Amino acid sequence: MTENGMMSRAKVLTIDTINPTVKKVEYAVRGPIVQRAVELERELSQGMKKPFAEVIKANIGDAHAMGQQPITFFRQDAKSRACRILQSCGGHSMGLYECDVFLDVARYIERRDGGVPCDPDDIYLTTGASDGIVTMLKLLVCGEGASRTGVMISIPQYPLYSAALAELGAVQINYYLNEEKCWSLDIPELQRALDEARQYCNPRALCIINPGNPTGQVQSRKCIEDVIQFAAKERLFLMADEVYQDNVYADGCQFHSFKKVLFEMGPEYSDTVELASFHSTSKCYMGECGFRGGYMELINMDDEVKAQLTKLVSVRLCPPVPGQALMDLVVNPPQPGEPSYDNFIKERTATLSALAEKAKLTEQVLNTVQGISCNPVQGAMYSFPRITIPEKAVKEATEKGQQPDMFYCMKMLEETGICLVPGSGFGQKDGTYHFRMTILPPSDKLKILLDKVKEFHQKFTQQYS
Amino acid sequence: MTENGMMSRAKVLTIDTINPTVKKVEYAVRGPIVQRAVELERELSQGMKKPFAEVIKANIGDAHAMGQQPITFFRQDAKSRACRILQSCGGHSMGLYECDVFLDVARYIERRDGGVPCDPDDIYLTTGASDGIVTMLKLLVCGEGASRTGVMISIPQYPLYSAALAELGAVQINYYLNEEKCWSLDIPELQRALDEARQYCNPRALCIINPGNPTGQVQSRKCIEDVIQFAAKERLFLMADEVYQDNVYADGCQFHSFKKVLFEMGPEYSDTVELASFHSTSKCYMGECGFRGGYMELINMDDEVKAQLTKLVSVRLCPPVPGQALMDLVVNPPQPGEPSYDNFIKERTATLSALAEKAKLTEQVLNTVQGISCNPVQGAMYSFPRITIPEKAVKEATEKGQQPDMFYCMKMLEETGICLVPGSGFGQKDGTYHFRMTILPPSDKLKILLDKVKEFHQKFTQQYS
Repeated sequence: MTENGMMSRAKVLTIDTINPTVKKVEYAVRGPIVQRAVELERELSQGMKKPFAEVIKANIGDAHAMGQQPITFFRQDAKSRACRILQSCGGHSMGLYECDVFLDVARYIERRDGGVPCDPDDIYLTTGASDGIVTMLKLLVCGEGASRTGVMISIPQYPLYSAALAELGAVQINYYLNEEKCWSLDIPELQRALDEARQYCNPRALCIINPGNPTGQVQSRKCIEDVIQFAAKERLFLMADEVYQDNVYADGCQFHSFKKVLFEMGPEYSDTVELASFHSTSKCYMGECGFRGGYMELINMDDEVKAQLTKLVSVRLCPPVPGQALMDLVVNPPQPGEPSYDNFIKERTATLSALAEKAKLTEQVLNTVQGISCNPVQGAMYSFPRITIPEKAVKEATEKGQQPDMFYCMKMLEETGICLVPGSGFGQKDGTYHFRMTILPPSDKLKILLDKVKEFHQKFTQQYS
Repeated sequence: MTENGMMSRAKVLTIDTINPTVKKVEYAVRGPIVQRAVELERELSQGMKKPFAEVIKANIGDAHAMGQQPITFFRQDAKSRACRILQSCGGHSMGLYECDVFLDVARYIERRDGGVPCDPDDIYLTTGASDGIVTMLKLLVCGEGASRTGVMISIPQYPLYSAALAELGAVQINYYLNEEKCWSLDIPELQRALDEARQYCNPRALCIINPGNPTGQVQSRKCIEDVIQFAAKERLFLMADEVYQDNVYADGCQFHSFKKVLFEMGPEYSDTVELASFHSTSKCYMGECGFRGGYMELINMDDEVKAQLTKLVSVRLCPPVPGQALMDLVVNPPQPGEPSYDNFIKERTATLSALAEKAKLTEQVLNTVQGISCNPVQGAMYSFPRITIPEKAVKEATEKGQQPDMFYCMKMLEETGICLVPGSGFGQKDGTYHFRMTILPPSDKLKILLDKVKEFHQKFTQQYS
């Protein structure tokens, strides 16, 4: 340590010398609101007085954390199957077991899609769907300046997408869902977003979340067909996030996989359009977030690219084997006549019915509140109501350097213990405000929660009028 | 599809339009040799005649895949603990459970390091050690051109490092381990590598693997002290990959953690040198690769950087909960008097003794072969012997566009069924050739394997002389 003794003592890694793409990453689902909620829980447990007895976390889609009972079949058999695998062919063997999973996933997709063929070689197991989505985005990113890869994502979006794009230094292209038409995806809006983006980047991929997160819409077959046509015409790689495929509640709504619609459109599309579809063990009726199980199916993917993908994922060794085992159970559930069948069906039905009821309840109660308007929660696990925030509150928030809906949600947390995520964390049209609330709390708790939200909103509106 | 109808049919994502950093990634441990081994297994199972009855995979450090029995305690208790956690606080809750793990990890580190304090807030749980290493490298990478981040890695290295650096577009700075001195790490060589690198990049981090992969050396306390002094003097962030910390076999060798040595060097170092240390459930006596459990400890990490890290990892939701539960068991093993204690100690001792025996056996047998010279396998799970490849074979390989040791290993696979990894996949001094072979096969199989290697090498040498 000579003349630069001072410098030597400075840290190597500081906020000024950190990877700048990391700094750009945002993830509202675990943002400041949640950090404050954790603090509040600690304060409560230390006996501090609060205007509420408990913190209710309605910020994250973790079903079991909110009291949903795991499906017995998965817990009984996942353990023994995971054990069998680990005993027999080791954690990251290329052996028989993984082949079984691939095959079972392929048969599942074929059953789901009414017989559209699925090649096990198109299946990649992933560490939850997030891992697959990030990996696919990583493959797609190249170029600099005006040829930098652009990726179209819906607004509102699930912030994994914006976070991954920020980290990869890709260009995020926003297309807005139509709140007035139940968060529908309109092709003219896709076209507008694409045409504008072509002036400053190279749009290569279009991401869809169906059923929607955070917006809960379920896309019609017609809409999916239009999106596929658009992608074909504009040469976009399609990424379909279909992790909520069993979470469809609204009458008249049905889940259509992009894969199925693609194949029904005939070889002009099914032989050419590149599609990655993602699924996971974390949502639907399973809700097994902790296992980090998932897969992606890759349609019309170039063979050399597939080889690159295989290489890339092998560096990380393998997705967790218990998650692989669980995924295998999910795609290979008990069949009629098998001992676990009746109980499995009973539990699955009960879980999905309860969610459907809570979806309806949420919409109904929220829409009784003046200044809150909530689209039907057709599917997935969230409501994303629009809230009116009085001018005076907007002003106070702005003075504090906060987004108005962050200000609103933070206040709600402090006064009621309810932890929601501000709409600004997902993106929204300028001048509109929302929050995302899961429909996951048990019915009785959800009722109380909704009443509290109502009461808070009324009080808040009064206070700032 | 108008005038550019042709273009419309071209794929969006091809080898020419893929992320160029992905193309640069290499991972020899699962490279062409292993792909061929998998093919050979399939051909054998289809009844094709081969000069061998089975493929023996000695390419990858997956202990259970090679027949090592799992420690009973982990299998019994991991399941019930994982269940308890998942039932109680959900997969990616911020709740009590993770706090337990952090606390248990911290107490484990304190016991290991003879009481050097460990703050649970410095612990981050990871999806295996690989995840932690890649995440830390990601934080460190910034700058362009001559200010681009450079990271020093040992040669030979574990190719996760080169793969991650390629993907991140960081500059890989090679420092060579001294094969003549049992793969020791010499400070003058560090200095040479650093000084050269400073001319074209901004060296910011120094990675160490101890015990070494693929080279099996165990660093002396003195060496670690020298490395820490070097890092302090040169302002380098230290990354210590200590996943083999229980895998020490050679007499007179002992594992010293970088953390412990750092703190014993006094506050001049322990208050300033930034250090990340990595551990996992995959190696040591556990060998539980499939669970993807791991943690990293971050010493002297800037608080703002920590906040960025917390944000970054939360985007990916959480490491697999069964892996967290298993990590908790590893750091919190049965204590004297507890029912599982005796059996746990018996199994752990047996596993480590068997590895020690196989380490010695490997070195002994390989050193009886003319043209193979093998350093003592002091620790970890691999031998990395140097092999003499005759000029004629080097020429034939070069004509085929293959690395000579790839040519050698491929030939060995085809003739004997033994799957090794060529030294070129790990890096080696120009003109030297090696292979990496795990010491993991059961003793009887390992003996056969070593004899076959011997026989093959003799035949190969004869053939090309």
